[in-house]
Amino acid sequence: MDFLTELKKRAGIVDEALERFLPSASNYPPLIHEAMRYSVFAGGKRLRPVLTMAAAEAVGEDPLRVLPVACAIELIHTYSLIHDDLPAMDNDDFRRGRPTSHRVYGEAMAILAGDALLTLAFELMTRTVQEGAADPHRVLRVIAEIAHAAGTAGLIGGQVADLLFADKDLDGNTLEYIHRRKTGALYRAAVRSGAILAGADENTLSSLTEYAEYLGLAFQIKDDILDVEGDQSKLGKPVGSDQKNKKATYPALFGLEKAKEKAGQAVAAAVQALTNFDRRANFLRELAAFVVTRDF
Amino acid sequence: MDFLTELKKRAGIVDEALERFLPSASNYPPLIHEAMRYSVFAGGKRLRPVLTMAAAEAVGEDPLRVLPVACAIELIHTYSLIHDDLPAMDNDDFRRGRPTSHRVYGEAMAILAGDALLTLAFELMTRTVQEGAADPHRVLRVIAEIAHAAGTAGLIGGQVADLLFADKDLDGNTLEYIHRRKTGALYRAAVRSGAILAGADENTLSSLTEYAEYLGLAFQIKDDILDVEGDQSKLGKPVGSDQKNKKATYPALFGLEKAKEKAGQAVAAAVQALTNFDRRANFLRELAAFVVTRDF
Repeated sequence: MDFLTELKKRAGIVDEALERFLPSASNYPPLIHEAMRYSVFAGGKRLRPVLTMAAAEAVGEDPLRVLPVACAIELIHTYSLIHDDLPAMDNDDFRRGRPTSHRVYGEAMAILAGDALLTLAFELMTRTVQEGAADPHRVLRVIAEIAHAAGTAGLIGGQVADLLFADKDLDGNTLEYIHRRKTGALYRAAVRSGAILAGADENTLSSLTEYAEYLGLAFQIKDDILDVEGDQSKLGKPVGSDQKNKKATYPALFGLEKAKEKAGQAVAAAVQALTNFDRRANFLRELAAFVVTRDF
Repeated sequence: MDFLTELKKRAGIVDEALERFLPSASNYPPLIHEAMRYSVFAGGKRLRPVLTMAAAEAVGEDPLRVLPVACAIELIHTYSLIHDDLPAMDNDDFRRGRPTSHRVYGEAMAILAGDALLTLAFELMTRTVQEGAADPHRVLRVIAEIAHAAGTAGLIGGQVADLLFADKDLDGNTLEYIHRRKTGALYRAAVRSGAILAGADENTLSSLTEYAEYLGLAFQIKDDILDVEGDQSKLGKPVGSDQKNKKATYPALFGLEKAKEKAGQAVAAAVQALTNFDRRANFLRELAAFVVTRDF
């Protein structure tokens, strides 16, 4: 099976699990459950949950056993998109070609839908013990790591810095600071969670962490590149928006060719970090390559 | 020591712990940590964390051991107030006599400060194992219960219903539906969490749950009554706002006298639920009485 087909198969498993884990849209009050589902099922690539599963697999665990945590991370990612799109934040009307949550449900419901997804994520993580028979100490460690990555030292801190530096000239260090938190922290937590639940020893965990950090970097640089030279119809969003919004990006700071070089180096370093892993880490290796060759 | 002095002493212990658990305001990026602290240290009565500690005490546990979970519940309460006050929601400019978060820090930062407090709450809960040597299965059960109480079946569901029914005539059942979720769910979770962490058996837990449900009801009715006949200077907020905002309240639906009768009955039922507890439940008994006799 080629990689893209395999990726889609795994994303499909995540979708089915999310369908199971999210409250039905008919639960009272229906509006909030509709709004939660609208954003969760909006055509995401499911890279984070797939990473959690693949990290568990690389350590020798059945990836299905980490599904609650994998899906919880996707819920946190979704909540952060809903809140980032709000008028008071980035004020975006469209995402992946569809109107954003607040455009459909209004601001109040969009704020609450984000809150509800974040809250549900933590409830879901506790279910790993029932679903996967994981050790409760490991689950608690994972909850702490994910909360830390989603908090002011990670995701939220990155968004705050992004808002503070809007319309200001950024240097490479500040750009990296923002990206390490706004996107990197959750990729890192996704990989580490799968590994921790699978019982990875500290050496294994540290190699996978290195992999995740380089992968997150490669992903972000590629995102910036696609915004310059991507195909709008494949991306599902307009290109050139970073330049229009005067956002600091890798191509803007370093030029397109140098940015591509940096992305390639990051992927090589990610794959290099997996040297001591056997073929059960092949999916992680191929995913790293995919991240910079993708056109969507 | 009289009850109010004892309550303030316990609230002081919670304040000290919150000071310890919240990131310093100088942590980068400082603005978000300032905003988090601004709302957490805004003069709340700390009833929820005090309840968690008192429930643990009633079951024979050292209340200091449940401090991380007790404080986490206070953080969730605070996040919900910040988001409820937003312009897109209740659009309140003042709370407890001080400008609300979005009036001081702007809407974006207020949304993010709420998100950050909710996220930190779950990170904090995992620390119960280190701080209190609690059984990890119990901590996971508590995380699940609190997340459920804070989610669309509780706190968020209540706020959604409150928004949907704004400016509409409510009957007693709908009013109860909203209150059971918007305020009741977190009181219930606060009491149950303390009891679960302390290792309460199912009978004990069920009595304490009954106590918490009646206490939450009494608290809400008294809140409504204070909005009619309370003293603005003691409450730290204008009275008469419910009537001005056409909010459904117990006095509006049943009349002031009948509402007072209902509050008294709820307190009696709360105390009654503790019949089989020894003197270690005395604080819970006195707290129930305080809830309806308070003038702030």
